[in-house]
Amino acid sequence: MKHGKISNNTIRRMPRYLRALDELTARGTNRVSSFELGHILGFTASQVRQDFSCFGTFGQQGYGYHVPALREQISQILGMHKGRNAILIGCGNIGKALLCNFDFSSNGINMLCGFDTNPELVGTHLNGIEIRPVSELGSFIADKVIDMAVLCVPPDSAEKAADALNSCGVEAIWNFTNADISSPGSKAVIENFHFSDSLLTLCYHIKERATRC
Amino acid sequence: MKHGKISNNTIRRMPRYLRALDELTARGTNRVSSFELGHILGFTASQVRQDFSCFGTFGQQGYGYHVPALREQISQILGMHKGRNAILIGCGNIGKALLCNFDFSSNGINMLCGFDTNPELVGTHLNGIEIRPVSELGSFIADKVIDMAVLCVPPDSAEKAADALNSCGVEAIWNFTNADISSPGSKAVIENFHFSDSLLTLCYHIKERATRC
Repeated sequence: MKHGKISNNTIRRMPRYLRALDELTARGTNRVSSFELGHILGFTASQVRQDFSCFGTFGQQGYGYHVPALREQISQILGMHKGRNAILIGCGNIGKALLCNFDFSSNGINMLCGFDTNPELVGTHLNGIEIRPVSELGSFIADKVIDMAVLCVPPDSAEKAADALNSCGVEAIWNFTNADISSPGSKAVIENFHFSDSLLTLCYHIKERATRC
Repeated sequence: MKHGKISNNTIRRMPRYLRALDELTARGTNRVSSFELGHILGFTASQVRQDFSCFGTFGQQGYGYHVPALREQISQILGMHKGRNAILIGCGNIGKALLCNFDFSSNGINMLCGFDTNPELVGTHLNGIEIRPVSELGSFIADKVIDMAVLCVPPDSAEKAADALNSCGVEAIWNFTNADISSPGSKAVIENFHFSDSLLTLCYHIKERATRC
């Protein structure tokens, strides 16, 4: 599927469409209009059509979208069938919560193993996933294709850990360190994930609502 | 501070500026140009100036921004000094991880208490925060100002829990249920938080990079 540069906002709406389609599937709905799909997510029908038009021709005028087909197309757009291999670095609080609670496999990710420096954690398993010493990172990666690392180290170790991963050939990072990682000039793809950004955005809207009332 | 409608993207950049300013403060930097601030975050200087111009006049031409003053202004914009009271509903995996690991207070939030239906959890404390039975939600809220609820119940209970909170007068929800909550017609402010949206966005970029190479 060839296309030009897609806006970040459009890309970030794709997983939301996927969720809405899963919800429709669970309800036994097989067909949906752009109006109905937009209504579930709070988008206009025009926004929905415009988003999908970036990736090709989806749906059919007068019919709408076939739910299973559209789900499959979005899943292809997001590369969910690729079976990406991942590792997780830093098995403290947030790393542990992710390994134990987040369903990596339903998002097409094989979580291979965790790494930590804490000798009390090394050798243990979290949710069936082995925790290895960080010193083994290079040798573990050497004979495998690792598509991404989930980075959960303390913020002041973030840049160093990202550099180490990069030099081992891991070029995508899901970054939970609360420090923005910038690797100028590198090919690395970084998705910074900040709980507080979301919370403070909510706080802004609470304040604005009070101002309006 | 009066201003017109600010775009969501601008609002979502504010917490990122805050983090960059905290980083500059930690480095002992007292003054920063829009170019330097943008460089830390991967924005252009023009983007930085445009974002702040939405909220009034910040900084001074030829001088740049005074770091502590700008931090204070952004903190005011986000309403961080308001001392918001919060409760958390659903103390399973993600709820527990948030209560135990997330620093609510440094974001200006007083986490008062957790609620759960599980009798084994009720009466216990997580990180010093008491877990109460959901049946006490109404009476607990009745004589307090609760500014927000952190919602961590299973997805199929999300809409019902949001309605219950709304009818108790809680009108802001930080939603971790993985179900989008829509409360049309209500005054509720909802911030939906989805780990998988972020992960799938990263997967998209990994796929696109491979296509380009």
